[in-house]
This record gives sequence, structure tokens and C-alpha cells, in this order.
Amino acid sequence: MGVLTPLTSRLRHPAQVVVAAFGLTVAVGTGLLALPIATTTGESAGWVAALFTATSAVCVTGLALVDTESHWSVFGELVIAGLVQVGGLGIMTMATIFTLLVSGRLGLRAKIVVQAETKTLSMSDVRHVLRKVVLFSLACEAVAAAVLTTRFFTGYDEPFGRALYLGVFHAISAFNDAGFALWPDSLMRFVSDGWICLTVAIASIVSGLGFPVVFELARSWRHPRRWTVLTKITVWVTAVLLLLGTLAFLMIEWRNPRTLGPLDEGGKVLAAFFAAVMPRSAGFNTLDISQMQPSSWLTTDLLMFIGGGSASTAGGIKVTTVGLLAFVVWAELRGEGRVNIGHRSLPDTAQRQAVTITALGVTIVGLATYTLLALTPYSLDQVLFEVVAAFGTAGLSTGITANVGTAGHLLLVVLMFIGRIGPLTLGSALALNRRARHYELPEERVIVG
Amino acid sequence: MGVLTPLTSRLRHPAQVVVAAFGLTVAVGTGLLALPIATTTGESAGWVAALFTATSAVCVTGLALVDTESHWSVFGELVIAGLVQVGGLGIMTMATIFTLLVSGRLGLRAKIVVQAETKTLSMSDVRHVLRKVVLFSLACEAVAAAVLTTRFFTGYDEPFGRALYLGVFHAISAFNDAGFALWPDSLMRFVSDGWICLTVAIASIVSGLGFPVVFELARSWRHPRRWTVLTKITVWVTAVLLLLGTLAFLMIEWRNPRTLGPLDEGGKVLAAFFAAVMPRSAGFNTLDISQMQPSSWLTTDLLMFIGGGSASTAGGIKVTTVGLLAFVVWAELRGEGRVNIGHRSLPDTAQRQAVTITALGVTIVGLATYTLLALTPYSLDQVLFEVVAAFGTAGLSTGITANVGTAGHLLLVVLMFIGRIGPLTLGSALALNRRARHYELPEERVIVG
Ligand SMILES: [K+]
Ligand SMILES: [K+]
Repeated sequence: MGVLTPLTSRLRHPAQVVVAAFGLTVAVGTGLLALPIATTTGESAGWVAALFTATSAVCVTGLALVDTESHWSVFGELVIAGLVQVGGLGIMTMATIFTLLVSGRLGLRAKIVVQAETKTLSMSDVRHVLRKVVLFSLACEAVAAAVLTTRFFTGYDEPFGRALYLGVFHAISAFNDAGFALWPDSLMRFVSDGWICLTVAIASIVSGLGFPVVFELARSWRHPRRWTVLTKITVWVTAVLLLLGTLAFLMIEWRNPRTLGPLDEGGKVLAAFFAAVMPRSAGFNTLDISQMQPSSWLTTDLLMFIGGGSASTAGGIKVTTVGLLAFVVWAELRGEGRVNIGHRSLPDTAQRQAVTITALGVTIVGLATYTLLALTPYSLDQVLFEVVAAFGTAGLSTGITANVGTAGHLLLVVLMFIGRIGPLTLGSALALNRRARHYELPEERVIVG
Repeated sequence: MGVLTPLTSRLRHPAQVVVAAFGLTVAVGTGLLALPIATTTGESAGWVAALFTATSAVCVTGLALVDTESHWSVFGELVIAGLVQVGGLGIMTMATIFTLLVSGRLGLRAKIVVQAETKTLSMSDVRHVLRKVVLFSLACEAVAAAVLTTRFFTGYDEPFGRALYLGVFHAISAFNDAGFALWPDSLMRFVSDGWICLTVAIASIVSGLGFPVVFELARSWRHPRRWTVLTKITVWVTAVLLLLGTLAFLMIEWRNPRTLGPLDEGGKVLAAFFAAVMPRSAGFNTLDISQMQPSSWLTTDLLMFIGGGSASTAGGIKVTTVGLLAFVVWAELRGEGRVNIGHRSLPDTAQRQAVTITALGVTIVGLATYTLLALTPYSLDQVLFEVVAAFGTAGLSTGITANVGTAGHLLLVVLMFIGRIGPLTLGSALALNRRARHYELPEERVIVG
């Protein structure tokens, strides 16, 4: 087994690795944010606020217990940005490595997988992937930061230092789908500013596709027919969700005087598109969510629950999962014996994994919704929105985050953690499990759950 | 192919047969209920109320646009009871025949199926099944009517004629899971009356198991190990749902002064059990639903969406569907290559059918919830409850049925119709589809959806 053995034996328990890494980062972040110098008042924020904020940052969720700008000092804000960066890169690199290693789940035929199957995946391959992920992330963030800084500097008369600070913070927050903003009303003041909205939206969409897809698109965007199943599903489901989401918000909110109503037609389209992108799971908002119609909340719930692409900074059960389920249903309705996507047949195991991840996601959201309904006086609309926002690491809120009580806050902390690492570790563990048996190691079967 | 050909060719398009039969019955019922003699005032109820009530009765849903007792005359009430009886028997017989005919979907090995596979299923077999279903239903209704009549006569000082009328009406309504009651507050006045509550609950549970299961239990209830997969899943999922449902209502409502609060401990357990049985989908209530906690509404939503057993008068996506999904998830989490239930391996096709029925159910409920949210001023809690009650043919309501407007009423009519015939026709069509190809008739492939 040569080089493969020690690596897979370390990766055979992905849940443990991921939980440990994220838990440790959250602990460090909590410690730093609990320091007196982390707040503007110079008093400690207290451990609940520190834990909540650190978890929200590391899990790139963006739910805020306290107003980020006024509550945290520059030191505190830098800690948050750092946690977001570590959390975002961490999830991307771990997820990318797992996805490539176990990609039998989608019949992906990436080069590195062929190597894995011929047992030559080595630490140098892993380092190669890591380097690509980190460099690509930093490059994207630099571009986004440059555009945002220029805009804040030229369009809003911010001093250059401040513009740069705002530009870098929000570029990191956007590319890592974290959704922390340095204005109490998120990005509402920029609702009609195409530069800012589109920069944030594009950064979020690109990072939300996930690295395996981004790299394949970079290699062969001119040849859609040659794309792997993973890339085809991710691109198409993403496009359909963005289109339907935009149309839904336009239809529902067109005349609402507190959301789209006051905007001109171009502004309406921009704001509706932005509202459709953000639940994927960047989590900024340019419209006042608390004033949206209940149908818009439901639309947002759905988009947040689905989330973005596999191996991305986006959360949710992932567009690939939903795409697979849609193909299964379609094949079944047409009476096909096999589920075919493009010219590939979808293995039964992949179908079962999609069902499992969806079912567990629904179960977790359901149980958490119950609990929060019991803990708070809020209605199902608001509680469901908050729970899905935490589970899907989207971080949008109807405004009840600060008021759900300490038990509610701890529930949200757990939910953010599960939502962030759950689908990844579960998906990869299921796939590794399968793969492990493919390697004929039945005695060492991985037990997950 | 002998006798089989004409029969299967008629049954190959189950959707058409079922839609036509139910549509025709609804049309006749609407006509009768629109007659002036159907109301107490002697004026026609109008076609919306007549259509709504007829659909609700034929689909054994039980949602009521108007108060049944005060609005409809005895003629009107007899029409409703007749429609319930026709609808209930119709769904049971059609579903039983389909289930037996296509039972490859669960690996069921009923005698009649073996006959089907050896091509000897004849009209006399169908008549045999029909006779069994009708006789068993009438026998159960007679027993329930006798108990209820006795109780109304001896316990509530009703004159014998009136007690008999009430007993027969509610026995029919209970055994067919229709949920129409002749009191404006349903059965709330009998909340602590074990005779009435348990009679209604048992009638509903038995009919909600479905005939294939009931007949197998009657044959071999002493040998649970020999039960077919269908029976095992139905019995176990039913038991678990009833237990968890009862516990949930006890926990959530124990101290609620407007529901369980005023009752003694025995009364609390009886009322919570009744509340757990009714969403399966009889749809009576002894507690004031509008005063329940939001968590209880969510519990009820879940139970109504799942519904009862296949080939029963209960609605929903069926306990078998949920049971199959649970087994798929469990097998996947344990890393099993195959999904085994008892000593049988579950075919991949059955897994895909369960996924398809669930996914379409969620989609339909989602779309209807959107539409009703847009049409009415009610909150998500109430709208979702109403939609699931209509789709699951449970007919419980938080009290908004009368006030959702004509468009809302027509939406609920469509939803009741889809909820009643959708899972049946879809399930059987999917299974027949598979079966048809098993017989090598690929050119005549059934298209459903
Ligand atoms: K986020
Ligand atoms: K009912």
C-alpha cells in the first residue's frame, strides 16, 4: 500500500479530524474574543458572546449576537476576519482533498483520483492541492478587495486607510461566504450600488462552486460536454436556483414598499438577484429581511437549506445532493431502470448518500426548530428561518438572533457547528467507507453517525 | 396472456381510472349538495361550498368550509356520509387491488401476486378482493356504530333514533378516516370519554393500516417473524409514530391551560394519544387546535404528511414510504452495500419510488404553501398546517379554512384531490411501469406525472 496506507488511515476518520480542527479553532477564537481588548468598551464580551461569534466566524455562518462594528474593537474585528479566513480555507482544503480522494461518489474522473486508485496519492499531492486552494483564494480575495476598496474610496469618500480596511474585511467575508459586515444593517446602504453588490455576489458564487468545479471550469470551460458529472450538476443547479430565486423575489416583493418597492426597475433586478445569491450562503443582505413577505422567507429558507457546491465555503446539503435527487426522481417518473446523467450511469450508492444527507439535514433542522420554538416566543416563520440560516451557514436573520436567550444561543452554536462540518464529514465518511471496502478492508469498517 | 391482458391493459393507466372515478363522484356529490334541500335554510349552498364539501367528503379529508351540522340538512348529511363511504371504499379497493397486483414494489409475496405472476389473476380474483374489503369495512363500521350508539344513548341521554344516527354517521366518518363530525367543535366535548375516543381511534388505526396488512395480521398475527416486509414496516412505523406523537403532545401541552392543562393525568394521556392518532388521518380533534403550541402544530404537520398505511383510507405519503427511507438511511450510515429489511433485500427500485413519492409530496406541499401564503394574511404556521391537512387528507385545521377566500378554497380542493389520488396513482403507476417491463412490454411504457 506504500504511501497510501498512512494517509488513508489518517483520513479514514474524517469526522474526528474535522471536528478536532474546527473545535480547536473555535476554542482559540473564543479565548481571543473574550479578551477585554476585543471590545470597544474594553470589557470582556462574556463567554457566550465570544463563543457564539467565534463559532459563527469559524463556521463562516455570519449570525451576529452583537453588532460587529460597534461591539468589537479593531483587534476583535481582525480576530473575526482571521477566524473566517482560517475556517474558510480549512473547509475548502479539507473538503477538496476528501472530494478528490473519495470521488467515486460521483464518478468524477479527476487526475488525482486516478492516482489515488493506482495508490500513488502522496503528501506531495496533498500539498499541491493545498497550495492551489490557498493561492486561488488569496488571489480572488485580492481582486475583490481591490474593487471594494476603490469603490469605498472613490464613491463614498472614505479615507484610503479606512477604505482598504473595509475592502479587505468584506472581501474576506464575501469570498469565504461568512457574511459578517461592518455596518449594523449589513449592506443595505449599497442596495443600488452595482459595483459592491456584484463584486460580493460574484466572489460568493465563485467560492460557492467549490474548488473541484472551479478548477475544472478553469481548465475546460470551453467544452461543457467534457465536464464531469460533478461540474455539470453544480453549474446547472446553481444557474437554475439563481434564476428561479431572482424571479421569486421579484414577483413576491415587487410592490412591497419596504423592500423592492422604492427601487427603479434595474435596482429591483439587482436587489432580487443579490437576495437570491446570498442564501447560497454568503449571508449579506441589501433588503430588510424582517420586512420581507413570508413567501420570501420561505424562498430564502429553501435556498439556504440547499446551499452551494460540494467542497466550497458554502453550507447546506449542497446543490449536488439536490441535483442527484432530482435526477433520481426524473428517472423514476420516466420509468428508467438506471439513473443516467449525461452519458454516465449514477451508482446506487451515490443515490443513497444523497438521500441520507438530505434526510439527516431535514431531521436536524426539524429537531432544532422544535427546540427553538419551545425556547422562544417567536413564530414558526422566524424560528425556521433562524435555524436554517444556522444549519446552512448562511447567517441571514429575521432579526431574532440576539433575543433567543442563552439556551437558544448555545443551540445555534451547536447547529452552526453541525451545519458546517456535518455534510462534509458525513459525505466523505460515507464515501470513504465505500471506498475502503473497494480496497478490500472489510474488517476495519468505518462506523459513522 | 389470456385473462391477464384485458385486465392489466385497463390497469396500466391507473391514474386515468382513479382520476375519472373520483372526479365523477365529486361531480355527483357537488350536484347533490348544491340542491336547496341539502341545507337547513332551504337555499342552495352555492357551488364553491358544495364542491369543497363534496371533494372533502369523497377524498375523506374532512376540512369543512361550513359547519356540517348547522349548515347541511339531514339530506345533506346523508349525502356527505354516502360520499365518505363511496370515497373510502373506492380508495381501499382500488389501492388494495393495485398493491396486490404490483406488489413487486415491496417484495410482498401475497398469494394473489403469485397468481398474477403466473398469469392467472382474473376478474373473479378482483371480485373476491372487493367482497372481502366491503364486508370487512361494513363489519368494522357496524361494530363502531354499535358502541357509539350505545354510548350516545346511555351516556348522553340522546333519544335512540338520534343516538343511532350519530353513531352510524361518526362510525362511517371514523372508519373511512373522513373526520366529519356533527358538532361544531368536532369531538371536543368527549375529550375525557374513553368509550368514544378509543372507538374512534381504533377504527381509524385499523382502517389506516390498509387491507393487505389487516388481512395478513388476521391470518398470522401470532407469527410476526413470518410477516411480509409491508406488514412489518407498517406495524412498526405506526407504533413508533403513535408512541412518539403521544409523548410529544404530553410534553408540549402538559401545562397549557387551554388544552391538556385542565385534564387529570389519565385524561391527559387519552387526549394526547387521540391527538397523535388523528393526524394519521382521521382528523377529529378533542383538543382545541387553535390553542395548541406551535410545536404541537409542527408535530401534527409531520404526522399528517406521513399519514397511514398503503392501500388504506389514510392519506399522506404513507408510513411504508417513510419506513423505507429510514432503512435506506440506516443502511447507508452503517456502510451496508444493500438495504436489508428482516431477511429480505430491498430492491433499488423500491428505494427510488420512496424517494420520488416523498420528493413530489414535499414539492406539492411547498408550492401550495407558497400560493396560500400569498393569497391570505395568515402566518406560515397556520398556512402550512392547512396545506398539509388537505394534502394528507387529515382535515384538521387551526381554524382558517372558512377564511382563505374562494381562490384559497379552490386551491384546497385541488390539493385534497391530489393528496388523495396522487400517492396511490403515482405509486402504483411507478410499480406497474416496472412490472410492465418485467412482462417485456416496453413499447407501451406508462408515462406518469
Ligand atoms: K454565511
Ligand atoms: K380526514
